[in-house]
Amino acid sequence: MTAYDDLMAFQRETEALAQVAGRLGWDQETMMPRGAADQRGDEMAALEGVLHARRTDPRLAGWLEQAVATDAVAAAQLRHIRRTHTRMTKVPARLAQELARVTSVAQGVWAAARANDDVAAFLPTLAEVIRLRQEEGACLAQGGDIYDALIDDYEPGATADSIAAIFDRMRPRLVALRSAVLGASHQPRKLTGTFAQEAQMRMARDLASAFGYDWSRGRLDLAVHPFSSGSGHDVRITTRVVEADPFNCFYSTIHEVGHACYELGIDPDYRLTPLGMGVSMGVHESQSRIYENQLGRSRAFTGWMLGQMRERFGEFGITDPDVFYGAVNRVQPGFIRTEADEVQYNLHIMMRFDLERALMRGDLAVADLQAAWNDRFKSDFGVTVERPSQGMLQDVHWSVGLFGYFPTYSLGNIFAGCLHKAIRAAVPDLDDQLAKGDTSAATGWLRENLQRHGGLYTPRDVVAQACGFEPDEGPLLDYLETKFRTIYRL
Amino acid sequence: MTAYDDLMAFQRETEALAQVAGRLGWDQETMMPRGAADQRGDEMAALEGVLHARRTDPRLAGWLEQAVATDAVAAAQLRHIRRTHTRMTKVPARLAQELARVTSVAQGVWAAARANDDVAAFLPTLAEVIRLRQEEGACLAQGGDIYDALIDDYEPGATADSIAAIFDRMRPRLVALRSAVLGASHQPRKLTGTFAQEAQMRMARDLASAFGYDWSRGRLDLAVHPFSSGSGHDVRITTRVVEADPFNCFYSTIHEVGHACYELGIDPDYRLTPLGMGVSMGVHESQSRIYENQLGRSRAFTGWMLGQMRERFGEFGITDPDVFYGAVNRVQPGFIRTEADEVQYNLHIMMRFDLERALMRGDLAVADLQAAWNDRFKSDFGVTVERPSQGMLQDVHWSVGLFGYFPTYSLGNIFAGCLHKAIRAAVPDLDDQLAKGDTSAATGWLRENLQRHGGLYTPRDVVAQACGFEPDEGPLLDYLETKFRTIYRL
Repeated sequence: MTAYDDLMAFQRETEALAQVAGRLGWDQETMMPRGAADQRGDEMAALEGVLHARRTDPRLAGWLEQAVATDAVAAAQLRHIRRTHTRMTKVPARLAQELARVTSVAQGVWAAARANDDVAAFLPTLAEVIRLRQEEGACLAQGGDIYDALIDDYEPGATADSIAAIFDRMRPRLVALRSAVLGASHQPRKLTGTFAQEAQMRMARDLASAFGYDWSRGRLDLAVHPFSSGSGHDVRITTRVVEADPFNCFYSTIHEVGHACYELGIDPDYRLTPLGMGVSMGVHESQSRIYENQLGRSRAFTGWMLGQMRERFGEFGITDPDVFYGAVNRVQPGFIRTEADEVQYNLHIMMRFDLERALMRGDLAVADLQAAWNDRFKSDFGVTVERPSQGMLQDVHWSVGLFGYFPTYSLGNIFAGCLHKAIRAAVPDLDDQLAKGDTSAATGWLRENLQRHGGLYTPRDVVAQACGFEPDEGPLLDYLETKFRTIYRL
Repeated sequence: MTAYDDLMAFQRETEALAQVAGRLGWDQETMMPRGAADQRGDEMAALEGVLHARRTDPRLAGWLEQAVATDAVAAAQLRHIRRTHTRMTKVPARLAQELARVTSVAQGVWAAARANDDVAAFLPTLAEVIRLRQEEGACLAQGGDIYDALIDDYEPGATADSIAAIFDRMRPRLVALRSAVLGASHQPRKLTGTFAQEAQMRMARDLASAFGYDWSRGRLDLAVHPFSSGSGHDVRITTRVVEADPFNCFYSTIHEVGHACYELGIDPDYRLTPLGMGVSMGVHESQSRIYENQLGRSRAFTGWMLGQMRERFGEFGITDPDVFYGAVNRVQPGFIRTEADEVQYNLHIMMRFDLERALMRGDLAVADLQAAWNDRFKSDFGVTVERPSQGMLQDVHWSVGLFGYFPTYSLGNIFAGCLHKAIRAAVPDLDDQLAKGDTSAATGWLRENLQRHGGLYTPRDVVAQACGFEPDEGPLLDYLETKFRTIYRL
């Protein structure tokens, strides 16, 4: 046994235990009886304690010092393990524990504040979370930019400056498109009616199958918030059902299928190793978004979906595929990021990016956040925020310390735009296939060119190699402008 | 922090991790996609490795040496922890690992042998399992009886001699009752018809509620084999549905509710400690059996059940409560332990007890097991075994090394008989309540007098204290003779 073998055997067990922790999380959101919540907290804490002890195990430093990579895969494994180990050693245990303690309480404080539209009740806690994350960022950055260090956790290699440059180019085009679309004389119809839960779930299952979800290694259940959970050979997804809005269920499902297919598509040789999971939040989101939007909300695929819906739900007032396409892609004013359409979604992200960067750098005081949010919303969306639950209290992220996470959503959209351009070039008759509900050429291309590599390459490299060009915001913006100008007859 | 506090803090985390392992087992039987089986093996192995390391942690010996019990609860905690620790230190790690390895393979060998009725394919593996368990038993017994040492794992304080003495007194009365019942001129009718799965599951849920199952801390799902899983505030049960035999679903459910209510009824102060789970297999089985049989199969409760079934399933050819009571309790010849009625069940156990004791003591060679089984079956049941899948291959237990486990099923029945006698004395109008589907007086008595104590007392003591008399087989046999002579008009 070489040092590398010892290290990887140890790492495999750690990854297996991390999968167990993930499964407990899935259980908590789907199956757990509500009276078990306290005990589950004890169980999770015990398991997290085991994981933390393994990730800071004193033997790791020696193994990492002695381990020799004999091929590119081994080199990538060591790169990931070193990265995590360096991170663990930079942050003092006391700070990690305090962050865990404060954020677990902060989520409850945030939820109560949002329910009561009470910003003041949340601000002291938010200030404490920010202070601790700043402290952690300073440990990680070691003299560099604190916010960059936090971004790097979710999107290795990305920096605030590079993201800001992209966002600065995107913002005017998106603001212009948003105004044009909302001011257009032609407005698509809205889907109306009631769509039974059972039938929605059956259709959600068939949509998951249409996008190649491997049921032998997954399952679909209901949860309050849709999510995908697990890596390797057990990747489960959840969705939700609103009887007046079947698109919510259908596109949540397709979105989560994208995340799940990424995990399931990784080379099985990497299972239970650092290479055996999606390489970054941004690349992960690119898969969920391209499944959901560029494929699932395309004119071709929605044409097939209309037929499916008419068979299953009978008549609901829309029979023309162009009208249906418009209903699926309808843009409307709104305050809430998670309900936003393709045109407005990135605008929501950009304002969060600027605000959280300013918070982290100390350029914006927590006391001024609400005013800053509302001003920016008015300027980007043209609407006045009336209640903080529509504004700065709407997202859970900051309460649990997720600073640097929001921009990965937009990076995912940008990557999806690039990958979509590459797929269109590689699969000229894609629309003919999508029109028959057949996504296999597109999803197969993604599996072969991107998903299977897992963590082997860096996030930007794996996208660039798949596309054959360096990713930027151009393809996404071109796609959005073409698509929505057509739908809105501009 | 005293040594006792340190020890208990460590123990609580171990218990929490053991709960996680149990939940993975539940997931595997109910929710896990089949393609995840290999990965689940890795996950379970990693978690078992963590548990084993904690149970053999070098700090335990020191804590146990220094810990001082300041009250009866602490004394009982220390007794349990010492017991487990002593066991772990007596068995060499090499032997424990080999047993884990061999039995995990042996279960598959047994399943294939049973499917093919191929005893020869199973014997070498069985011989190996027996050899290893004998070796383990010798380590544990340290000069004492090997089989006693194995029994003590499942039923602390019980010995083969004490069990043999009880069984010797039971066997003639049960054989006589069996013959009388099967030869009786009056034979109860059999329930016939088809009972839809959905409606069976709805009724199973209502039966679980009728027996006081706490849905806020549990749930009911389908599985191949019914089981109860978990301790503390998360105790889940499963059942199965055969559309031609609704009693299978209903009584499996009530049985598992008995197990679950025991766990859920334990003093919540004992949660995630050695006192926070059922004290022995025998006492556990006493709860499942008294819920299922003495309460669930009583004339009074089945009268209420008949009304429920008629409401839910319409007419199925039985309207008279006495006829229904007969159908529920019908005794028929059969080879399979898990399908046996109250009269014959213990006869199945007694022959297994004698055979496994002889195997463990070296008085019976594995090669002679089949003949010994078939001879004994003919003598106790009057029927010739035709296929080993009806005979010595029917149970999984021996393949996974469960020697000394079978007798706890009968001890459970014996304890149930005693507890039933005590409840009848304490709740004179029990039948009036059961006839309304109200089990709360009986199940409340069990919770108050037995379940809440968890592991505080020894198995025999907790039953004796609840009953007010030393448990023996008398009440069970009296109950069976009275009940079945009435049903069969003897």
